[in-house]
Amino acid sequence: MTDHLRVPDFVEGFGPLQETRVSSVSKSHGQHRKPVLPDLDAAISALELKDGAVLSFHHHLRNGDAVMVAVLEAAARAGLRDLHVAASSIFAVHAPLVKHIESGVIGSICTNFMSGPVAEAISRGLMTSPVLLRTHGGRARAIRSGELEIDVAFVAAPSCDPMGNISGTTGPQACGVLGYPQCDVLCAKRVVAVTDTLVDYPAQRIQISQDSVDMVALVRSLGDVSGILSGTTRPSEQPDDLEIASKAARVIEASGLLVNGFSLQNGAGGTSLATAAALGRVMERKGIVGSFASGGVTGFHVDMLEAGLFESLLNVQCFDLKAIESFRNDPRHQGMSASMYANPHERGAVVDRLDAVVLGAAEIDLEFNVNVTTRADGLIMGGSGGHADTAAGATLSIVTTKLTAAGFPKIVDRVGTLTTPGKTIDVVVTNAGIAVNPGRDDLTDRLRAAGLTPVPIEELHRLALEQSERRPQRSMSDHIVAISEYRDGTVTDVIRKV
Amino acid sequence: MTDHLRVPDFVEGFGPLQETRVSSVSKSHGQHRKPVLPDLDAAISALELKDGAVLSFHHHLRNGDAVMVAVLEAAARAGLRDLHVAASSIFAVHAPLVKHIESGVIGSICTNFMSGPVAEAISRGLMTSPVLLRTHGGRARAIRSGELEIDVAFVAAPSCDPMGNISGTTGPQACGVLGYPQCDVLCAKRVVAVTDTLVDYPAQRIQISQDSVDMVALVRSLGDVSGILSGTTRPSEQPDDLEIASKAARVIEASGLLVNGFSLQNGAGGTSLATAAALGRVMERKGIVGSFASGGVTGFHVDMLEAGLFESLLNVQCFDLKAIESFRNDPRHQGMSASMYANPHERGAVVDRLDAVVLGAAEIDLEFNVNVTTRADGLIMGGSGGHADTAAGATLSIVTTKLTAAGFPKIVDRVGTLTTPGKTIDVVVTNAGIAVNPGRDDLTDRLRAAGLTPVPIEELHRLALEQSERRPQRSMSDHIVAISEYRDGTVTDVIRKV
Repeated sequence: MTDHLRVPDFVEGFGPLQETRVSSVSKSHGQHRKPVLPDLDAAISALELKDGAVLSFHHHLRNGDAVMVAVLEAAARAGLRDLHVAASSIFAVHAPLVKHIESGVIGSICTNFMSGPVAEAISRGLMTSPVLLRTHGGRARAIRSGELEIDVAFVAAPSCDPMGNISGTTGPQACGVLGYPQCDVLCAKRVVAVTDTLVDYPAQRIQISQDSVDMVALVRSLGDVSGILSGTTRPSEQPDDLEIASKAARVIEASGLLVNGFSLQNGAGGTSLATAAALGRVMERKGIVGSFASGGVTGFHVDMLEAGLFESLLNVQCFDLKAIESFRNDPRHQGMSASMYANPHERGAVVDRLDAVVLGAAEIDLEFNVNVTTRADGLIMGGSGGHADTAAGATLSIVTTKLTAAGFPKIVDRVGTLTTPGKTIDVVVTNAGIAVNPGRDDLTDRLRAAGLTPVPIEELHRLALEQSERRPQRSMSDHIVAISEYRDGTVTDVIRKV
Repeated sequence: MTDHLRVPDFVEGFGPLQETRVSSVSKSHGQHRKPVLPDLDAAISALELKDGAVLSFHHHLRNGDAVMVAVLEAAARAGLRDLHVAASSIFAVHAPLVKHIESGVIGSICTNFMSGPVAEAISRGLMTSPVLLRTHGGRARAIRSGELEIDVAFVAAPSCDPMGNISGTTGPQACGVLGYPQCDVLCAKRVVAVTDTLVDYPAQRIQISQDSVDMVALVRSLGDVSGILSGTTRPSEQPDDLEIASKAARVIEASGLLVNGFSLQNGAGGTSLATAAALGRVMERKGIVGSFASGGVTGFHVDMLEAGLFESLLNVQCFDLKAIESFRNDPRHQGMSASMYANPHERGAVVDRLDAVVLGAAEIDLEFNVNVTTRADGLIMGGSGGHADTAAGATLSIVTTKLTAAGFPKIVDRVGTLTTPGKTIDVVVTNAGIAVNPGRDDLTDRLRAAGLTPVPIEELHRLALEQSERRPQRSMSDHIVAISEYRDGTVTDVIRKV
């Protein structure tokens, strides 16, 4: 290095060489103290964002999340405009987004699920550009493929060290698995760890490591832990729900899939959990051990693991404290990224290995298409999340639903919004009977053999109409307020202004 | 979806839409059974590789690895030519590569470390294009930045399920942490999990997940477990080594860095471990608790963790069974990727947080430049690995060495190959005295105050020459057989044909 003859300018069979300059070599130690910024204003300033920037957020803090709003408040104070919010989900707690949409700070939104005041305001025509609603797997696909380019991923970090090593299992707002931000941190141009709990280096139980994080920003609190954990994480005890759950469990039993190695996903709702409970009793009686249960995980799933009904849990998101504890302590309970969970790319996701999934529906129609995006009055109240992903992946996709809700029929001629294509739904189980998708005659035969008597879905539709007092309202507005994107990036439907 | 009016072709404020076609929607379950190929020939065939393809390999199986050779044998049988081998390290066990270089199957190589028959043959002029020698951090940087584009990453998988979820902690060839292939699997166009232990889905303790893996290929054995674990993982008991170790520990103590929160990296060699042992006794006596020890981890490091001398271990590679056991069972013992360990990008790596590193040297010169790449006779016998990375990162970089080896001086006028720039080396500790880099006068003062009496490196050089019978041979050949790349991608030196 002191002698320029040491390194030639060009090497045959290789090409030009650039010699290391002594003057450019130094200890990196001092240079690589990562900025730990005192607040989000300092972070926004350090990022030197431009109008129109794409900011991403995860939803592990659910309806207790204070981070997305705090970041957007800081962006507003910095005078930024026309931001694109790429949130994995939006809840009631995010209501202040409405004023930032009104003022032009937020110009567009994509998300996988949207409920509460933001969803309602958007349904009523708040935004000029439509919200893009993706599936959990579709979002992972869009990020990994470069379709959704993120300028800055803000990662709410239950604990974090000064170099940005993030753990979800410690801190006052511990949420356990951090499955949703994983694609964001891999692909975003910049990553900010937002934390209320700065721990000594190195953080313990690192889930996102420092080589993915550009800076750390401190906040007083990530949010309200009581909103982070969802309400219902016990099986329903309502007679109607139990009847539906019992039938759904019998459908799974009759399907032939309930053998050793069985895999299951069910949501955190009372009927879904009751179905898993009923199924657990069958598994126990028959001595069947399942391989895994997946999805958002509750304490109820942990009970099934600990009872030996499943060998493992694959968890993209914890729903309660018991799930967090188990994820922390039991190696059979593994975390997974949204990409591993549901990415529809050719490498295959966990959903593709599901034997059965138990799903809900706002509406299901005569072609078995499911709406989990809009209410009967047309207001947005959800979105696919993992619904369309698991339906496509699982060998047996079961929708459980009552015939009516709030006076509206839930079995309809045609869904108000097509979220999940009927070709991926196999059975609908209601309190008034079971209908099998005509594409699954094999299943019809198995159910009949098991003493279950499926009826045509038209029959359930007729009963639902009989028992309902009102009819869904379908908007004919030209103003499209949201687009429902399928996991592969095509569009299943548009949602119109109410 | 049945009605083309449902999804318009274009939405104002958004752009064109492509409607989901019912005919293209299907259950993904059947499609996403990942190929589990019976052998590497089937894998090579399925990959449809072209001549010149870039194949990457990790070195967690060290000198017991049978995977790299088996893949290249299969590539040779398939008639492939001019392949680029991107291996994180090459050992004696990889000797069969020589014949594949001779036959033209392998056209070029990049690696971070190279010893044994392949290194010797390359030193003697086997290849027309020079081998590119990187650092561990430099390889991570090159892959993440796109400078090194990998067509296929072959990941030796101690256990793996049929969807490609890989664990390093179970299976007959369990090697523990899988730090080196992490960048490869993130960035390679295709990823093949190569395993001798196919486990039921889902694998336990997943370290590389299915969404990064394209196919699984079965082999009879990943290799020889006795070669996977390195020999020396206990401190040396040789008097010379113990004297050097004791001095090195006194240097660290005198440096002022040995306070609570201290962090250390030391290699797996006997003198390095003896230095850590000596330091451990000081820490115990003074009641000092370090924050972390990093690097390749041995059972000796585990002992220090369990004795409470360090709060945690950050481990890129396990060197012995005890390290594997501890990594499996103790959450304070965390794995890290090569990128987290040593990537010189602006996000900062673990090496940047090191207080002290204890390094070896084949030669060190009057400018404190270190050679760990070639022997005194010019033959390649190593490469940086993490040497240049940790030297640049640590506040205090100590090289421990005897004055001579095999009759050659180890303190030289000028190193045969410049691996690690002297500007990043602070102290050299020998059996005959200590020399401090003139750039670190603060350290000289501290050592003097502690009763240590540093001497000019010229004095150690003079003694080394006195005690040696032979002089290093420097090749003047025009045939450049290897290029020593610094962590930032510039070139510190070239290695000439012997």
